Amino acid sequence: MTQLEMARKGIVTPEMRKAAQADGVDPETLRKLIAEGKAVLPKNKNHSFQRPLAIGANLRTKVNANIGSSGACASVELELEKLEAALRAGTDSVMDLSTGGDLRAIREAILEKSPVMVGTVPIYRIATELHRKGIPLYKMDVDQLFKELEEQCAQGIDYITVHCGVTLETLKRIEGSDRVLPSVSRGGSILMTWMRHNRKENPLYENFETVLDIAYKYDVTLSLGDGMRPGTVVDATDRAQIEELILLGELARRARERNVQVMIEGPGHVPLNQIEANVILEKRLCDGAPFYLLGPLPTDIAPGYDHITAAIGGAIAAAAGADFLCYVTPAEHLSLPSPDDVYQGVIAARIAGHAADIVKGIPGAIERDRRISIYRRDLNWEGVLSEALDPEAARKRLALAYDRETCTMCGELCAVKLSRPFAKKS
Amino acid sequence: MTQLEMARKGIVTPEMRKAAQADGVDPETLRKLIAEGKAVLPKNKNHSFQRPLAIGANLRTKVNANIGSSGACASVELELEKLEAALRAGTDSVMDLSTGGDLRAIREAILEKSPVMVGTVPIYRIATELHRKGIPLYKMDVDQLFKELEEQCAQGIDYITVHCGVTLETLKRIEGSDRVLPSVSRGGSILMTWMRHNRKENPLYENFETVLDIAYKYDVTLSLGDGMRPGTVVDATDRAQIEELILLGELARRARERNVQVMIEGPGHVPLNQIEANVILEKRLCDGAPFYLLGPLPTDIAPGYDHITAAIGGAIAAAAGADFLCYVTPAEHLSLPSPDDVYQGVIAARIAGHAADIVKGIPGAIERDRRISIYRRDLNWEGVLSEALDPEAARKRLALAYDRETCTMCGELCAVKLSRPFAKKS
Repeated sequence: MTQLEMARKGIVTPEMRKAAQADGVDPETLRKLIAEGKAVLPKNKNHSFQRPLAIGANLRTKVNANIGSSGACASVELELEKLEAALRAGTDSVMDLSTGGDLRAIREAILEKSPVMVGTVPIYRIATELHRKGIPLYKMDVDQLFKELEEQCAQGIDYITVHCGVTLETLKRIEGSDRVLPSVSRGGSILMTWMRHNRKENPLYENFETVLDIAYKYDVTLSLGDGMRPGTVVDATDRAQIEELILLGELARRARERNVQVMIEGPGHVPLNQIEANVILEKRLCDGAPFYLLGPLPTDIAPGYDHITAAIGGAIAAAAGADFLCYVTPAEHLSLPSPDDVYQGVIAARIAGHAADIVKGIPGAIERDRRISIYRRDLNWEGVLSEALDPEAARKRLALAYDRETCTMCGELCAVKLSRPFAKKS
Repeated sequence: MTQLEMARKGIVTPEMRKAAQADGVDPETLRKLIAEGKAVLPKNKNHSFQRPLAIGANLRTKVNANIGSSGACASVELELEKLEAALRAGTDSVMDLSTGGDLRAIREAILEKSPVMVGTVPIYRIATELHRKGIPLYKMDVDQLFKELEEQCAQGIDYITVHCGVTLETLKRIEGSDRVLPSVSRGGSILMTWMRHNRKENPLYENFETVLDIAYKYDVTLSLGDGMRPGTVVDATDRAQIEELILLGELARRARERNVQVMIEGPGHVPLNQIEANVILEKRLCDGAPFYLLGPLPTDIAPGYDHITAAIGGAIAAAAGADFLCYVTPAEHLSLPSPDDVYQGVIAARIAGHAADIVKGIPGAIERDRRISIYRRDLNWEGVLSEALDPEAARKRLALAYDRETCTMCGELCAVKLSRPFAKKS
């Protein structure tokens, strides 16, 4: 039985108990959320790891770090370094998006070392193999694709992205549209290439029941990919994107009917004033399924700083109800991220998530802000550092003034110090 | 006559013309905005500089960088380095907040070298001098304070922060309140200290007409400081803050009646879901006066990364109508910023401002996103770099894959490349 199936039967599993505890919620509350499909608990039956977590409504906003090799840059060691950096920065999940080197070995190593859930996009493996052999992508063998899905699920992957919503119907919405970038989704564009050449429907859509069979067998959570996500703010929230979202909502319902856990992937590049609408729409069209966002980036003009741009969009999205933020690193749009980029990306996403958790009313969120602020009032620097998101980074920057009490920003003209007589005794 | 006075008389000044051109708006449109008090054009009669800019409604969101020495860290050279870093990062304004070293010399050097408007907080000089002489702040001489105001205005400062809204009435709102941090405003807490000890009203409030006389004489724009701004999200939007804002609205009206340009400073530390309300409130209570925000920071837990936290809050505030973003650097709350911190702070604030300008509908804003996205679609990397906010930083990170066309992120599995057949010919 899957976590969803057990939740529906009223059973609180050990994983639910652990995940509930990590989030500071009641296990029964979490069970209900999972049963309703408003939360997922990605954990493959074949993967045991330290920190199973749930993603969804009324829970702390979770953060994912995409790691993985590329053709230009592939080694198991480097990927383990990135995993380590992501974990040090406090990620809740990693996705292995490798497309270079020994893909199975990298996946195996990450699965073994990761204390957090691991996701993949199985079609990358197929595309990588074809590319290596010089075979055009449109010759992708559908059976091979499903074999790969099964292999990765059997291997222990906790959630997989499947771009089931890129259909002949969705593609129609691109034709004749003003889209600047038809697709910025690797998985989506691989399928589009195949569909265009073979004039056939997306096999992941057409054989969605087979996808469900595999996912059910290992309790792999489906992350329904957004092949039509906008790749520039100019393309955001267009007909192709929303057509796909409608289909994903239908597929999500089918998944839940088969007791398969499911979440929905979302954009992408979205102007500030469309972000909330995107979250509301997803929740409505997908019956409250957890929303997993990449970014969103509210502008395209800051390559080199897209972790900051994504933090802006991510905070707004999460405050509006998005549940899971896929980080963006400073390397986005320019190169494969380094371990330090991975670290910076996770930190930025966590800032966004926490700022949102304060207004989501997540238990414990604003309390941490209160604690650090009381330490700040008391100029108790060790206290401040102990509550800081990244104590080490803060400690490196901390420079005390001559009085050893205040920092070098204001020295003895420190407002906190000067306004002490006005502080309420507490 | 001040810019405001001339605007009211229907005169388009050369500065208005220059500022209008820089913003891509019609000079007559800008004149009207200035006449209505919805925009300011900070430019001291005694200061000639290259790039006069207007701040306000329907204009590009502007960015300020706070530089300046402190007791622990004071040299003219270092401040000029910070000025240079801020300019390289594209700041629209700098404030010299020095409280260490030869304050007049630093101010003089910044005024001379800066091609953009320069602001100060004159009371810092007074407090610094008292502190040096070992005289308690409550012994501050009111005449001395006004002499200093006059001196800095005569010297050519384009706008000054005066904390006129910290009054006996506002302070009452702190007493018995739950505020964690009574004040995080240096200027505010200096005045609070003086008021508490002398049991007298804030001299800048009581003698506001004198402030106006001086400001009018040199056409110095008043930036009405927020001594009561919250210093933690827990304190945001409380009675003390809003009481002060009400007073600032009244003072702003008096300033405009005297033909003195005026803008309003705002918080601070504000949870995500209160930011828009703060902007709406300021616009209403202050008759549409330009809103100058420090941050806002939607969480307190990320010292070392507060430029990112402030970018989140700044983007939301600006999208809601805030006009002027004071940057926050990664050093905030920990130490005086270095030139590199200054650079990072300006970039982060500019990302926030631009993301907001897209949704404000500022002419030219989204067009830049469109251009960079078309270059991205065409994998025209030089084009991408040419439209990037920080071309140098982006170039450093750019790493091309073997095919020299795509980047190392995806290599030949690049979605942009794969989805080309679906692109509209343009």
